[in-house]
Amino acid sequence: GKKVLIVYAHQEPKSFNGSLLKIAVEELTKQGCSVTVSDLYAMQFEPRATRNDIVGRLHNSEAFNYGVETWEAYKRGGLSRDVVEEQKKVQEADLLIFQFPLFWFNMPAILKGWMDRVLVQGFAYDLSKAYDGGLLQDKLSLFSFTTGGSKEKYATRGDIRYLLWPMQHGIMHFCGVKVLEPHICYAPENVSEEKRKEMLTAWTQRLKTLWKEEPIDCSPEWYFK
Amino acid sequence: GKKVLIVYAHQEPKSFNGSLLKIAVEELTKQGCSVTVSDLYAMQFEPRATRNDIVGRLHNSEAFNYGVETWEAYKRGGLSRDVVEEQKKVQEADLLIFQFPLFWFNMPAILKGWMDRVLVQGFAYDLSKAYDGGLLQDKLSLFSFTTGGSKEKYATRGDIRYLLWPMQHGIMHFCGVKVLEPHICYAPENVSEEKRKEMLTAWTQRLKTLWKEEPIDCSPEWYFK
Repeated sequence: GKKVLIVYAHQEPKSFNGSLLKIAVEELTKQGCSVTVSDLYAMQFEPRATRNDIVGRLHNSEAFNYGVETWEAYKRGGLSRDVVEEQKKVQEADLLIFQFPLFWFNMPAILKGWMDRVLVQGFAYDLSKAYDGGLLQDKLSLFSFTTGGSKEKYATRGDIRYLLWPMQHGIMHFCGVKVLEPHICYAPENVSEEKRKEMLTAWTQRLKTLWKEEPIDCSPEWYFK
Repeated sequence: GKKVLIVYAHQEPKSFNGSLLKIAVEELTKQGCSVTVSDLYAMQFEPRATRNDIVGRLHNSEAFNYGVETWEAYKRGGLSRDVVEEQKKVQEADLLIFQFPLFWFNMPAILKGWMDRVLVQGFAYDLSKAYDGGLLQDKLSLFSFTTGGSKEKYATRGDIRYLLWPMQHGIMHFCGVKVLEPHICYAPENVSEEKRKEMLTAWTQRLKTLWKEEPIDCSPEWYFK
């Protein structure tokens, strides 16, 4: 069975994001996948990139450089335990699903902090090992999120794909992770109960054939054509 | 004199970002501006959007909804003290400068958390009060950041402006804040000491005539033309 890591960033299990998470865990488990969830708020996951992420002495204690220090710490096995645990989950996973409500055209800070702290140099990429050479080969990723505004509202100011560029291309593609079509639920708080149920059903249906999907072509054309 | 708020997200005062901050404080003060700095790491600013941001009882304690709860709390003066303090600084400022190292095509999580927690509904925008009707009118903003990669490296995979869309348009423009040209220092860690000095001088020079600058046209064309 495939291994799936769901990185989940919502405070409330009864939320629509909570329902989407529950569906993914149930459906993927039913398929025989082994599913791990990093429930960031429940874990009180630390989003700040600080000196605390390095156990023991610094490479250069005169001037703190987070990128250099975490790279050096990774090489000698000196990253903080919470980061190492997340890296293990990523390493084992065939598929990473990010489930979150869109905050300001972007991930919530707690999830951005997961990216900042977990995907360090040496682990996720290296000098001249980025994009198709990124270190997290043979993995898939999927950004699944809810919005506050309606689809129409987003469409009046350009394409929603514009805001996927930093997340999908700038992070996942950079690390060599392939990207599946995003799964977007528009404004679940402002639609009817019936429409919400339809959205949940659509997610279940998509998951049933997820492993047959082809990754997107993560080039500028996909985002800005 | 004008009022400037600099929201600064770097751990190390001796860093290049630290130098850019120092220059901005000195030059703007010399011009007679009143400058306030929110030094996020030094403040140990909380990036996580949680129930702790609401003082007292929740509007709906059955299912926690961060957007609804902070909106309600804002209206009754019930947001946590650290958020209220930042909102006061924003309210008083004529110009917001965000100074940070680019992490993953984006702001560091600690700065994203500042956006998530400070710019709540009712304070920064409201139903049907967004973009040119956003609540933070008559303010300017400027994203000043350093990159890890060179200008040439960014250019091989599309335009660096692509990644400014969520920050400049999705946040500042949405709140009604006008956006000045970003200030980008490419790869200061990988250039000569002379080149670094040139970059610092260029920032000083730019600040001298900053108040004469026209905001950018924050439309899709500016980003994706």
